[in-house]
Amino acid sequence: MKEYSVKDSLIIDQNALDRYFEFLRFESISTDSIYEAQVLCCSNWVAQSLKKMGFEVEIWKTEGAPVIFASWLDAGKDKPTLLIYNHYDVQPVDPIEAWETGPFNPTIRNGSVYARGAEDNKGQCFYTLEAIRHLLNTTGKLPLNIKFCIEGEEEHGSGGLMKILKDHQEELKADYLAIVDVGMRDAKTPAVTLGCRGLVAFEIQVKGPKGDLHSGSHGGLVVNPIHALTEILASLRDSKTGEVSIPGFYDAVIPLTREEKAQLALDFDEQQYLKDFGALPLGGEKALSHLERVWMRPTLEINGISGGYSGEGFKTVIPAKAFAKFSCRLVANQDPDQIAELVIRHIEGLSLEGVEVTVKRLPGGGKAIRTSPNSPIVKAFLDAYTQVFGVQAVCILEGGSIPVTAELQKACGGTLVFVGVGLSTDNIHAPNEHFGLDRMEKGAQSMVLALQNLARHHG
Amino acid sequence: MKEYSVKDSLIIDQNALDRYFEFLRFESISTDSIYEAQVLCCSNWVAQSLKKMGFEVEIWKTEGAPVIFASWLDAGKDKPTLLIYNHYDVQPVDPIEAWETGPFNPTIRNGSVYARGAEDNKGQCFYTLEAIRHLLNTTGKLPLNIKFCIEGEEEHGSGGLMKILKDHQEELKADYLAIVDVGMRDAKTPAVTLGCRGLVAFEIQVKGPKGDLHSGSHGGLVVNPIHALTEILASLRDSKTGEVSIPGFYDAVIPLTREEKAQLALDFDEQQYLKDFGALPLGGEKALSHLERVWMRPTLEINGISGGYSGEGFKTVIPAKAFAKFSCRLVANQDPDQIAELVIRHIEGLSLEGVEVTVKRLPGGGKAIRTSPNSPIVKAFLDAYTQVFGVQAVCILEGGSIPVTAELQKACGGTLVFVGVGLSTDNIHAPNEHFGLDRMEKGAQSMVLALQNLARHHG
Repeated sequence: MKEYSVKDSLIIDQNALDRYFEFLRFESISTDSIYEAQVLCCSNWVAQSLKKMGFEVEIWKTEGAPVIFASWLDAGKDKPTLLIYNHYDVQPVDPIEAWETGPFNPTIRNGSVYARGAEDNKGQCFYTLEAIRHLLNTTGKLPLNIKFCIEGEEEHGSGGLMKILKDHQEELKADYLAIVDVGMRDAKTPAVTLGCRGLVAFEIQVKGPKGDLHSGSHGGLVVNPIHALTEILASLRDSKTGEVSIPGFYDAVIPLTREEKAQLALDFDEQQYLKDFGALPLGGEKALSHLERVWMRPTLEINGISGGYSGEGFKTVIPAKAFAKFSCRLVANQDPDQIAELVIRHIEGLSLEGVEVTVKRLPGGGKAIRTSPNSPIVKAFLDAYTQVFGVQAVCILEGGSIPVTAELQKACGGTLVFVGVGLSTDNIHAPNEHFGLDRMEKGAQSMVLALQNLARHHG
Repeated sequence: MKEYSVKDSLIIDQNALDRYFEFLRFESISTDSIYEAQVLCCSNWVAQSLKKMGFEVEIWKTEGAPVIFASWLDAGKDKPTLLIYNHYDVQPVDPIEAWETGPFNPTIRNGSVYARGAEDNKGQCFYTLEAIRHLLNTTGKLPLNIKFCIEGEEEHGSGGLMKILKDHQEELKADYLAIVDVGMRDAKTPAVTLGCRGLVAFEIQVKGPKGDLHSGSHGGLVVNPIHALTEILASLRDSKTGEVSIPGFYDAVIPLTREEKAQLALDFDEQQYLKDFGALPLGGEKALSHLERVWMRPTLEINGISGGYSGEGFKTVIPAKAFAKFSCRLVANQDPDQIAELVIRHIEGLSLEGVEVTVKRLPGGGKAIRTSPNSPIVKAFLDAYTQVFGVQAVCILEGGSIPVTAELQKACGGTLVFVGVGLSTDNIHAPNEHFGLDRMEKGAQSMVLALQNLARHHG
């Protein structure tokens, strides 16, 4: 494979790369309050970048990270308006020891940039900005009216943006809404994504004795909080069928339509998955197909667990407490509030003796979303991707969640689409996140074409 | 309650306290190899202390921490020989943030010394040494021949000492063996302990994908290692009955004799337990009495668990790996090797798909032990404790394990007893371990009397 070089590129040139690295160096982790100042600095960088490009910029304060709103409306009233959504915050970096180079020290290896946020979502936000800069630099204008809504709490549930959406309905109004935060079908095949899953997250704490106890003097006497926690967690799923065991969990799920079933008839390569991720895709509901499980069905996954001694050797202790975090991905028609109630009621109903169980919903989360495959914006992106990548773009769904999407679409009123050039092998949310520079260039070129297509296709 | 003062004390005076603090300051954690040098320094301190008291000292090298062997045999051949066992190593200190003062910065609060090892076993070792120093200082001799075997790997399974025992059978020969590492029935009632449980420990690792994955893009596709781990751990015990579910686990357990049942007829105060430890004693096998569960029945307890994200907020990750440590307490007639085989076979037999499960036995552990209530050494200590504490001493059992005991007794050939003045509220193996100075003084005085009693009762 030929090494990618910025010299070959039309849009992501050396100057662009320098700007990209600036963007990546901000430790804008929104889920941990100690990074608050870095998140703020990063938001300022985004605002300044848009201002320099000629956008009118507003900084919308929230109870958390500010939202950068920017607009360029000089295309005129006969041209459509597109609202583009991105986020400038990133996921935490642990396990930090698993990174080959520092997560906030962007480094190029084999034509890819390695850094936290390299793809999700600074990378995708960045090439979108560069595509628009390119259009302005080369043509002096944009083919349609553009608004940006770039928030800083997507990885923390978008709580700040959600709360202020209804105060800014007028500004957010648009004919179309593009969420530039998703990916391709595979390394060769570009895609437009018609929906994503919803999310609701939880934290559970099991408290036993007031301090850690000796497992000899107390083993058999006291209830071990880790045992209680594993029992609770094991009760959440049926290990035989892979189904979530919480009563009522699937009640609101609507069976697949014929059209949806046809959509899911895409191939899934088990061996390629094993090669990419090091494990066979044998999770989830055993009776269903791979893509059904990851696109069309809700899940419950434990995201973290801790308790007792995990150092070298052993420590014969019964710990005072044990903790876990878990989250559910939801599908269309499932209500996060209702699912949260079912989960909490199930766990509280277990009534374990000798320990105190506290389960609480974490802030954030949101509904699943699904859009039509027949809108002008879907066509505009499918055509652009097909032309730039030289491979027919397809329609897919996304298993992940962009919780604010449903609310943002309501405020904007336009037709929504999810686009992007991420790959499932980019290690987003994991150590050694990276983004290919060739894909970034193609993403930028596709964005230019898609905007031009949309201006033509509209109305 | 009157504050204890070293001025009131016969044996643990200010000079003794200074020596005790010296001993406590060594970070002699045997389970973590980074403390190797500190363990060595501590062993040297023990050796020098015994030498200064007039003992002949040998340092027995092992593959791990050295064993300090010391003897004073000037009482003559018509007097019995007592071998005293202690250990100078201590447990790890985490969670370090839960300590009110540094674990290696001994501090007196409310008449107790707070430090890792304050009781287990530096405290108990120390007052034994001071009792003997007191006898030598005040009478110029000891009433019987004394040998010491003080090891530095008890908290790590005593592997080093176990391996060299048979090379030192001649030196270890004694009429009696006192393991000074256990405790009282309760804060008022002294006790002699007739047996302790055995121990076998395990570590389990569940490996899934090669890196952490996004729980949206992969949830429902990949098997989550934390889920697999909680299923495995939940399968080890029956949550309804509290019994260990591993086939064959109880096969070797011998039913209680009438005498043992009578022994267990001691009261157990549930409300006092709740007050002392902050939880009701509702763990273990539900059909059995409290003391049966903790003294006479084997257990399986998870000692630590970790995997995924445990920081602030949440991180929607499916981790690459999850880990746990767990251990079984064994009772008389259960063989640690056989139990290890049963546990490993059970877990390997679960054959979970999509993850790689590795379970291994950790070094260390040992058989349970039981001694007769009718020997001269039991009587010597019961009488001494009764006299010093002013309350009739009782015979009890210990739920914890001192793995080397069975092997040491075999090498020594003498009649064994477990003694000590620890309390279950001393927080051994936990943050804020402490030891009351009044108890330490009484422990020392009881030791003096017990040695004198034993010299008289013998033969």
